[in-house]
Amino acid sequence: MKLLRVGPKGREKPGVLDANGDIRDVSGLVDDWDGMALADSVLTRLKKTDLSGLPKLDGKSRIGPCVAGVGKFICIGLNYADHAAETGADVPAEPVIFFKATSAICGPNDHLEIPRRSEKTDWEVELGVVIGKEAKYVSQDDALDYVAGYCVVHDVSERAFQLEGTGQWVKGKSADTFGPIGPWLVTRDEVSDPQDLAMWLDVNGAAKQRGSTATMVFGVAHLVSYLSQYMSLQPGDVISTGTPPGVGLSMSPQQFLHAGDVVTLGIAGLGEQKQVCVNA
Amino acid sequence: MKLLRVGPKGREKPGVLDANGDIRDVSGLVDDWDGMALADSVLTRLKKTDLSGLPKLDGKSRIGPCVAGVGKFICIGLNYADHAAETGADVPAEPVIFFKATSAICGPNDHLEIPRRSEKTDWEVELGVVIGKEAKYVSQDDALDYVAGYCVVHDVSERAFQLEGTGQWVKGKSADTFGPIGPWLVTRDEVSDPQDLAMWLDVNGAAKQRGSTATMVFGVAHLVSYLSQYMSLQPGDVISTGTPPGVGLSMSPQQFLHAGDVVTLGIAGLGEQKQVCVNA
Repeated sequence: MKLLRVGPKGREKPGVLDANGDIRDVSGLVDDWDGMALADSVLTRLKKTDLSGLPKLDGKSRIGPCVAGVGKFICIGLNYADHAAETGADVPAEPVIFFKATSAICGPNDHLEIPRRSEKTDWEVELGVVIGKEAKYVSQDDALDYVAGYCVVHDVSERAFQLEGTGQWVKGKSADTFGPIGPWLVTRDEVSDPQDLAMWLDVNGAAKQRGSTATMVFGVAHLVSYLSQYMSLQPGDVISTGTPPGVGLSMSPQQFLHAGDVVTLGIAGLGEQKQVCVNA
Repeated sequence: MKLLRVGPKGREKPGVLDANGDIRDVSGLVDDWDGMALADSVLTRLKKTDLSGLPKLDGKSRIGPCVAGVGKFICIGLNYADHAAETGADVPAEPVIFFKATSAICGPNDHLEIPRRSEKTDWEVELGVVIGKEAKYVSQDDALDYVAGYCVVHDVSERAFQLEGTGQWVKGKSADTFGPIGPWLVTRDEVSDPQDLAMWLDVNGAAKQRGSTATMVFGVAHLVSYLSQYMSLQPGDVISTGTPPGVGLSMSPQQFLHAGDVVTLGIAGLGEQKQVCVNA
């Protein structure tokens, strides 16, 4: 199933995209697409339900973030061998973990706010993994059982805030609208191989990132197991698994986003996002 | 007012500690002590309400974390000049920001789980600042208006996970039970000077940390304003503002926590915590 949330910010309704491209309103069946509703039992029941009689949500309405009430927004750094190479970093021996603020989460087509004093706002298309049940000290063999599904994440980054000055990466990863997720959460039964998905990102129609989850250093099962050794993963948590080559920081000369720029990105089978940049 | 949450994990009721030391059940007045209930308007109304007729909650029951539904658990590193010195680090030119997982949050007296494979679990008593209304690009002059109140935070840390191996500090800061908060959220009107609070931490009754928020490098108003330049602060967010000297990492020889150890800590006017260490 393709799960999505439609409506004004903070008042989205949960929907399911059906085979005809219609969005069925499932707000009578689940409160929202939050951690509670992402349990296997709920999704299995919904999959067996005939949704064709449910009201349709307006397909032209705003699409919200595909998960509500995200508890943790976890990111993996330098997780594509070809991206690590372009930044001049070695491929890490173990996953590099950092967090984005959950307040950065927004809808896939919402405006992208360039923070005040930003000169280096950059793009990163990433595969998002949404957790479906609590995972604590789980093995790689079992790890994918804890995944509800997958989505597109744009891990927007301000490179000066992230890398220059004091401290940790979180400072350049957490501005409002720096975390568009969606349009859909595609349930894991419909993603036959999360390690074989083409991904792309364009700025103003020009190709910037072209890659595939096939070149991830640490795959989804590895990451879920690894993270669960250091923190419990909760239903509704989102893991953004790193970006392929082609970020603006690594170009010569470097390229960054400015008000008026339009970013489009997508992952095969998981849908597309489009953001217009505006000043915060 | 002293706000607290009492009851079994996940089913805590909101209460107010009255002048007699009784906990009044305010669940008929607010849903929970979450971001929504921490608005000035709600707290002002409650302060004017006669609570003496409300039922009492059992003072011997478990105390939960003093804030529910925390969206971000933000920490400041090396924010006491005397602590920076003991770790061998320079005082940072700007605040060092990192996040803890919100899933690490627990009650002030819950067991402290030593993670599997941990050899270096360490303690840090810290002043917690709880946000009461959205803060985005706010000035230092206005910053304290965005604070609902203060609480004790224990920023438990696994030093090998934090500092050895790959990547960012979050990995050593985020295990379950690594973030006891409470017992109370003390509203800001009852904390006359957040930069003049004595703080202490003992292990098995032996003094480890003795300090005062007076030696913070960046005070609360500075931190709230600074953070709000990089991310929006939301009601219910918790900022843990750094630790004074006396952590186990800096002792010679180094000291760390093991199952059976008992940690007690507190801040003047904000109450005390007590944790028994157990193996995860």
